[in-house]
Amino acid sequence: MPIITLLSDFGLKDPYVAEMKATILSICPDSQIIDISHKIEKFNIRIGAFILASATPYFPIGTIHVAVVDPGVGTERRSIIVETTLCFYVGPDNGLLMLSAERQGIRHVYQISNPQYILPRVSRTFHGRDIFAPAAAHLARGCLPSEFGHETYNYVFPHFAEPSLRGSKLTGEVLNMDDFGNVITNISVQDLEKIKVQEGSLLQVRFGHRVLTLKLCSAYGEVPAGELLTVIGSHDFLEIALNQGSAAQALKAQVGNLVRISSLITSP
Amino acid sequence: MPIITLLSDFGLKDPYVAEMKATILSICPDSQIIDISHKIEKFNIRIGAFILASATPYFPIGTIHVAVVDPGVGTERRSIIVETTLCFYVGPDNGLLMLSAERQGIRHVYQISNPQYILPRVSRTFHGRDIFAPAAAHLARGCLPSEFGHETYNYVFPHFAEPSLRGSKLTGEVLNMDDFGNVITNISVQDLEKIKVQEGSLLQVRFGHRVLTLKLCSAYGEVPAGELLTVIGSHDFLEIALNQGSAAQALKAQVGNLVRISSLITSP
Amino acid sequence: MPIITLLSDFGLKDPYVAEMKATILSICPDSQIIDISHKIEKFNIRIGAFILASATPYFPIGTIHVAVVDPGVGTERRSIIVETTLCFYVGPDNGLLMLSAERQGIRHVYQISNPQYILPRVSRTFHGRDIFAPAAAHLARGCLPSEFGHETYNYVFPHFAEPSLRGSKLTGEVLNMDDFGNVITNISVQDLEKIKVQEGSLLQVRFGHRVLTLKLCSAYGEVPAGELLTVIGSHDFLEIALNQGSAAQALKAQVGNLVRISSLITSP
Repeated sequence: MPIITLLSDFGLKDPYVAEMKATILSICPDSQIIDISHKIEKFNIRIGAFILASATPYFPIGTIHVAVVDPGVGTERRSIIVETTLCFYVGPDNGLLMLSAERQGIRHVYQISNPQYILPRVSRTFHGRDIFAPAAAHLARGCLPSEFGHETYNYVFPHFAEPSLRGSKLTGEVLNMDDFGNVITNISVQDLEKIKVQEGSLLQVRFGHRVLTLKLCSAYGEVPAGELLTVIGSHDFLEIALNQGSAAQALKAQVGNLVRISSLITSP
Repeated sequence: MPIITLLSDFGLKDPYVAEMKATILSICPDSQIIDISHKIEKFNIRIGAFILASATPYFPIGTIHVAVVDPGVGTERRSIIVETTLCFYVGPDNGLLMLSAERQGIRHVYQISNPQYILPRVSRTFHGRDIFAPAAAHLARGCLPSEFGHETYNYVFPHFAEPSLRGSKLTGEVLNMDDFGNVITNISVQDLEKIKVQEGSLLQVRFGHRVLTLKLCSAYGEVPAGELLTVIGSHDFLEIALNQGSAAQALKAQVGNLVRISSLITSP
Repeated sequence: MPIITLLSDFGLKDPYVAEMKATILSICPDSQIIDISHKIEKFNIRIGAFILASATPYFPIGTIHVAVVDPGVGTERRSIIVETTLCFYVGPDNGLLMLSAERQGIRHVYQISNPQYILPRVSRTFHGRDIFAPAAAHLARGCLPSEFGHETYNYVFPHFAEPSLRGSKLTGEVLNMDDFGNVITNISVQDLEKIKVQEGSLLQVRFGHRVLTLKLCSAYGEVPAGELLTVIGSHDFLEIALNQGSAAQALKAQVGNLVRISSLITSP
């Protein structure tokens, strides 16, 4: 059974997600549809791109990922299919798909314009149902990406800051806060290695007006409940966490906040 | 694989939805179960009926729709199966199923009373699990609707106001606010044609104490972010929206609020 | 198709649930994955155990239940597979699985330590994806529980109070409040029979500083909307409810609150 994943900012109250699934099953009845998330912050393409890129590496080869965070729906922005070395992406050409696709190696990007693969009546407000879901279902049935429209080369990329290194100080930013209140930064394990930080190290963390001394732990439970720590999260980025509580609340963190890291003591 | 959809006001925190799915899979293991929504406002049969009627047209012929918004559970209200020209509905006889079923053409309505198709112990508080889920699963296995009980003719219909037209003024009401804050009215494209309104027209919109002049746009992005507009939504009803924001919040909209529309300038 | 259920405190915003499903489908593509709940109160093992034990009796024999409420992830707490007379449980050894497993009859408990059945890189923060999901998928493919590691006999049990009976007074406690605001106690139908209470009886209910006289109804709709009642819920526990409203709000109920019950009048 072909796997089709869905990601959106639609929420779970309205019929929109079900309408996409219904459209997919009408075209390709044996699809296996998996939700990645429908609670992306509304219109926030960057967070959508980050969540998509986090989840996609765990899906089997050949999975078709449909993502819709689409403030430009109904305007001139194009609809695209991305073929990577591993799988397919379907959605708006606004950068949402590309952080994930780039990590897999982009082979081709096609516009979706062939009316044969679009619902007969396309609303101006819901391309998820009328364009992206049918495209994904036709891909699942075996259509080639090149059948959907012309190849394109000038697609939109999302902007994500790279952490900067000056002397022994790393400056990164907050990518996302998860539902546990973990504050996920764009500082990777590889970045930390450059300043000789590893598990067990003590870090000086500057966050807003605060200067914190936090251990780089290997588990949340390494500090008492209610205390701050840092940890390498499950996607290999540095997180600021609070054991059994919300670091995001404690630090009043916002996406985009700067995080400055330096090593106090390196473990042997 | 037969498709069974679920709609309820159960929320997603509790085990209730999973118990319905478990019951279905115990009787018909190859069912494909799709959630429409479990976040219907509690006990709000009208909104449930509206969401159900929005989603069902996109599902394949033969789909079995189970819906449970059921303030009368355990009282005298009956349990029914509705057979339309296209599909099946299972749920309480309180109007929830009928807006959607009527649009498809109702063929027969049967009471569910045959104990053979009901869980051996029926709780007084959870007919979704004990009566509706088993009925849907037995339908999916091929039971005829007439096997579940007697045909009935005096079922409950939900009340939905029709927009009224006086001279060149349409008066409708708010059916629902979606998770984006779009304010969805009961005024259809056909209603708007009667007052010669089409995309590009300028509308005078009276909403509460406000009198707004809003363009009937073809896409949210046709006005700057943060500005109000009107648009034909994905179900062909007039919506008041706010580009990249919540019109429902800006207008303090509530379900049932009156909306009065007249055309200021008709596009050529 | 083997059924794998998921329960967690991950919420639905983040990619974590999807990563577990992706991992399962990569190992066992024909799994049928059903969510029980991902909105368990964070780190609350007791509520997780209660919700799991509520849902599991309705699933078919052979179902594999994966549950992750795991404040001790990455510490010394062990990962286990429980084989009962009916099905399998996979998760942390912190009591979460055991309320449900015990009711089915525990046959064997195995540690998960065989590296063959674990993702090659195990994060310290997300065993749901890296250990439990692969274990469940390998079980679904037919691996024997004993292949995952040594049998263990000293596993953790969750503490749940038993109601106490003194004379004709039952003292129990609040197990959970559901999304409707029903206050679910640990007092069972069997407990009520000991004080000769049955449907139709009038109960004196002491809750905090309040002394209430409430009928044991057979349906919520037996009292007017907005009034308190008691009812035997769908899992055979006594609930305090408020017809078409939230008893939890009206009583400011919290998990663990004491509830004292005595019979005022027994129905004939």
